[in-house]
Amino acid sequence: MFEKSTLKKLALAGLGATLMTVPVRAEVSGETAYIFNTLLFLIGGFLVMWMAAGFAMLEAGLVRSKNVADICVKNVSLYAIACIMWMLMGYNLMYMDVSGYFGTFFSLWSPDDAAALAEAAEHDPAGYAAGSDFFFQMVFVATTASIVSGTVAERIKLFPFFIFTAVLAGLIYPIQGSWEWGGGWLNSDGFVETYGSEFADFAGSTLVHSTGGWAALVGALILGPRLGRYSAEGKVRPMPGSSLPLATLGTFILWFGWFGFNGASQLAMGSAADGIAISNIFVNTNMAAAGGAFAAMVTTKLVYKKVDLSMVLNGALAGLVSITAGPDTPLPLEATLIGAVGGVLVVFAVPFFDKLKIDDVVGAVSVHLVCGIWGTLAVAITNPDITFMAQLVGVLSIGAFVVVASAIVWLALKYTIGIRLAEADEELGSDLAELGLEAYPEFGKGSQKLSF
Amino acid sequence: MFEKSTLKKLALAGLGATLMTVPVRAEVSGETAYIFNTLLFLIGGFLVMWMAAGFAMLEAGLVRSKNVADICVKNVSLYAIACIMWMLMGYNLMYMDVSGYFGTFFSLWSPDDAAALAEAAEHDPAGYAAGSDFFFQMVFVATTASIVSGTVAERIKLFPFFIFTAVLAGLIYPIQGSWEWGGGWLNSDGFVETYGSEFADFAGSTLVHSTGGWAALVGALILGPRLGRYSAEGKVRPMPGSSLPLATLGTFILWFGWFGFNGASQLAMGSAADGIAISNIFVNTNMAAAGGAFAAMVTTKLVYKKVDLSMVLNGALAGLVSITAGPDTPLPLEATLIGAVGGVLVVFAVPFFDKLKIDDVVGAVSVHLVCGIWGTLAVAITNPDITFMAQLVGVLSIGAFVVVASAIVWLALKYTIGIRLAEADEELGSDLAELGLEAYPEFGKGSQKLSF
Amino acid sequence: MFEKSTLKKLALAGLGATLMTVPVRAEVSGETAYIFNTLLFLIGGFLVMWMAAGFAMLEAGLVRSKNVADICVKNVSLYAIACIMWMLMGYNLMYMDVSGYFGTFFSLWSPDDAAALAEAAEHDPAGYAAGSDFFFQMVFVATTASIVSGTVAERIKLFPFFIFTAVLAGLIYPIQGSWEWGGGWLNSDGFVETYGSEFADFAGSTLVHSTGGWAALVGALILGPRLGRYSAEGKVRPMPGSSLPLATLGTFILWFGWFGFNGASQLAMGSAADGIAISNIFVNTNMAAAGGAFAAMVTTKLVYKKVDLSMVLNGALAGLVSITAGPDTPLPLEATLIGAVGGVLVVFAVPFFDKLKIDDVVGAVSVHLVCGIWGTLAVAITNPDITFMAQLVGVLSIGAFVVVASAIVWLALKYTIGIRLAEADEELGSDLAELGLEAYPEFGKGSQKLSF
Repeated sequence: MFEKSTLKKLALAGLGATLMTVPVRAEVSGETAYIFNTLLFLIGGFLVMWMAAGFAMLEAGLVRSKNVADICVKNVSLYAIACIMWMLMGYNLMYMDVSGYFGTFFSLWSPDDAAALAEAAEHDPAGYAAGSDFFFQMVFVATTASIVSGTVAERIKLFPFFIFTAVLAGLIYPIQGSWEWGGGWLNSDGFVETYGSEFADFAGSTLVHSTGGWAALVGALILGPRLGRYSAEGKVRPMPGSSLPLATLGTFILWFGWFGFNGASQLAMGSAADGIAISNIFVNTNMAAAGGAFAAMVTTKLVYKKVDLSMVLNGALAGLVSITAGPDTPLPLEATLIGAVGGVLVVFAVPFFDKLKIDDVVGAVSVHLVCGIWGTLAVAITNPDITFMAQLVGVLSIGAFVVVASAIVWLALKYTIGIRLAEADEELGSDLAELGLEAYPEFGKGSQKLSF
Repeated sequence: MFEKSTLKKLALAGLGATLMTVPVRAEVSGETAYIFNTLLFLIGGFLVMWMAAGFAMLEAGLVRSKNVADICVKNVSLYAIACIMWMLMGYNLMYMDVSGYFGTFFSLWSPDDAAALAEAAEHDPAGYAAGSDFFFQMVFVATTASIVSGTVAERIKLFPFFIFTAVLAGLIYPIQGSWEWGGGWLNSDGFVETYGSEFADFAGSTLVHSTGGWAALVGALILGPRLGRYSAEGKVRPMPGSSLPLATLGTFILWFGWFGFNGASQLAMGSAADGIAISNIFVNTNMAAAGGAFAAMVTTKLVYKKVDLSMVLNGALAGLVSITAGPDTPLPLEATLIGAVGGVLVVFAVPFFDKLKIDDVVGAVSVHLVCGIWGTLAVAITNPDITFMAQLVGVLSIGAFVVVASAIVWLALKYTIGIRLAEADEELGSDLAELGLEAYPEFGKGSQKLSF
Repeated sequence: MFEKSTLKKLALAGLGATLMTVPVRAEVSGETAYIFNTLLFLIGGFLVMWMAAGFAMLEAGLVRSKNVADICVKNVSLYAIACIMWMLMGYNLMYMDVSGYFGTFFSLWSPDDAAALAEAAEHDPAGYAAGSDFFFQMVFVATTASIVSGTVAERIKLFPFFIFTAVLAGLIYPIQGSWEWGGGWLNSDGFVETYGSEFADFAGSTLVHSTGGWAALVGALILGPRLGRYSAEGKVRPMPGSSLPLATLGTFILWFGWFGFNGASQLAMGSAADGIAISNIFVNTNMAAAGGAFAAMVTTKLVYKKVDLSMVLNGALAGLVSITAGPDTPLPLEATLIGAVGGVLVVFAVPFFDKLKIDDVVGAVSVHLVCGIWGTLAVAITNPDITFMAQLVGVLSIGAFVVVASAIVWLALKYTIGIRLAEADEELGSDLAELGLEAYPEFGKGSQKLSF
């Protein structure tokens, strides 16, 4: 029945099968890779979502008790607002058809499941469910927004803060984000030619942390310090946080969530090489945080004779921010040192900003901006493919944009609806002034009131 | 050596290999799918287990300080009791040989690893380890039990509450659960014929949340309000929670855990289509919570002039409950709106129950029952395959059963060992009365005592 | 073009492909298994890392408010120090070229990615990324170190504690760990011949928990009890913890993290059999904790007439420690009972140590040492392959080593830099004495100060 040539073809097909089968027996199939990649985004996403609780607890612990409920309202609401703005416009602006400086304005995101299934059917080993990527990117913008609330706490009005958050999440973050992660000009061939390498920001020391830090810094400048924070002679009046164990909890939550933040920024888990990369990222993320906490602990002991818990906490976070731009390339010892430098930086940055009378309630600018810059530049040290110049241009261009854009929004709010609580309200506390309730009605001031 | 026909056969075999290999190269193997499915249950399971901490913190933050240790004892113990009852009888009652209305009474669950291995060996792509499913279902019953404790807090005695928990976890929950998830009458062909579609409750707006809510509501009615809660003229005396940051933490924990609750209710992760579905569920779950929090925030501002933190928290939870019956079909914007309706509902439901003098300490009935019903009915809006009638029948039949069964148990407890603390004990606080200790011995009342 | 023999070969190749393809269609490929195994370590690792927050919250809740910030500093710093020591020497000492009693001294760990990729390319189904294993083992040593801080709280100086932590993590833990998990003498053929079976400690009831417990016990003995803890007549003065909801939160965190602790100790997830094993481990871990909490709750009610929250929490932890040596073999009911015995043990162990005037602030010795021993011995009950003698020898040999090594370090510290706070500092509180700040500056003592 079969011609000889047919037989040959069949036999060749058999050979082909053999040759093709050998790797098949050991390699990951396209659909399996698709599931692994999707799973990485989902696990990373829920870990980063959980960081919202970390910011909430850190800030609730570091503000005074009369402002605790207010900072909780802000943290829950800013997360909600950031997610809604991201769905309404942010995602498409950052990722859809980016032409150098931004993507598609004002187009609601919705998953294209048909396209996703087709992609899966093509067995693309880099494939993943569109929704999983959307979710992962959504919690990143929420992180950026969370950074601001701590710095401007205890004196900013609720709704102006929410409006700023909406603009940050819907416009400022996605526009600068599109420059690099959306495939814009920082990620272009032209940029590489000009500056010797691409701009490298693996998980967002600059795109997330310094963006949040710049927005917070500009906010703190325009808003001014808390009442009584700085005396005329420049003395800093301590305003200790109301619950250091909650601040500690918040730090641990952030540390924990950071494994998702950095680990899932590998963006793929469908090969052994990805598994190795993610594992190294986990190790380096942990070591940088350990290095930062340890360095801040020792530094405060040496400089101030006493170990300062809030500095140890900020040191851990400083280490995490510092490694975020490049957690994939350093050796563990290098990661520890990069984090340790961050931990030392934060110990000096906090009083530095106080000297400038820039009142940052939780030290977020020192942690996220200063160490965000340090971490981004440090990539050039451990990664030979990256130039210092490329990193610097990325840091400065994003910084300039965020500063200008944030200043416009903060000032517009200031000269329209106003951004600052009335003095009496600030003294009373934002909880009673804005919410009409107390965070701890039976303790501290609350208990005094109850005893009447 | 080979006959020509043999050659042909071999060549055909080669062809067969080729044809068979093509899908092999891309698809997920049976055992790989088995591992993915099992992993989904395990990840979902530990996330939902963690929700027990969320309920504990939410309730510890919303009760007065004199009842905080007691509510912690309840939350840890109810989780333990629910798990033990589930192992002793609940799982088999809900899932084993369900004949319309319930499964196997009083048979201890243990894993059949031999059967599981055989199933894996058959390469069933829908296979999973029996223990992973048992674990996942076990933490669901614990969630149901957790809902009740908040409503009846501050006045119920410890051991009667534990007995109710045992009956709820061992009998009430698994019986109604068997009707739908166990393949009982709500999931039967006859039901579809009568009501035009199956009853759809993806992750348990009705089976878990409204079941817990009904049990709590009946408990609150039979138990009566806290002393002094309602004046003779119907005025509501505020009894503010002792620690709003803990309540905020609890809400974030629940939000975080809900990704496991809804996501793993897909029950499979062994294909690209599952990955896509789970990703959309994650997005919708997050958006519904964001919508609920945002809507509650804006609604309280509009209605009461002040943003109410506890309402924002309950709004987020309301959004989560609302989307739980159908997180797989809506578009993200639809999910946001479904959640937002839940967030508005809860703002009006809480004072409504107060008007009826039904004292629900944490608002759990408003969140879990009201929004559980809304979410179940809302499935008919976004899912064209589901009829409103089928949803209504499911809601009402489960509601009727849980109300009657709960009432029998609560009343039996009331008229035997009693369910309510003595008045003096309630005024003293359940911590000192039932546990002989204080949650915060150095703060508030405790610190006054210490200073003598 | 083709010879007949070539055709035959090709056809045979086709047949081979067919035969070889059949298992391919269903089994997990080597690289897929590699990713699953790596993923298990990473998920298990971040869950166990999170247990550091659990210990911090448990201890912050159980110490008095004047020592809360100090215990937070200790918990963050000890985690950092343990990780750094692990990287500098611990890992290699425990796992590299173990020759009976320890591995390689003083060699910095760094991942060998080239070897890892080669391993992956060999399609070893037991392969995993080296970094993922390093990360998982690193968080285990941090757990061991965390156990000590609670016992010696409220009276130990900061830096001597850190030095002890460094020695524990860098020397004591990895040396004893090498005996079993590093393939040393407890895991040798000679041992099996002598004692009838290998020493079985699945996830570390002995290697982690009783090691931490022995180190803590020796520390408590050498350090002495807190001032005023025991009267001359032997009366125990209660020193209630400052925040029982934080202690509850800590317990839930530990319970949650324990799924990673025990589950990922299966060390592989690349087959259906692994998936089944991990699922059973999850179930048993949960049931043991439930059994421990329930048993402690009932026992305190029966013995003391009141339910004791801190005992319920310690009961849950006792159950978890008890099942850790063998979570894979018992049936769920057996696991519940093993945990319940642990829960009862802890209720009697706590007053027992008090009777001996051994002051263990949080009950860590009762939980981790007593139940660690019980759990290790209990393996011989449910696992027929394991002899009681092998378990006993393991427990005693590791106990003897840790006691001697810890005593040397504690005594060396005591007689050089001193380990105990000055009496005035202890009365003032370690927060003000060592850190110069307060954990709750507006509440309790802090608020009294502020009101002047």
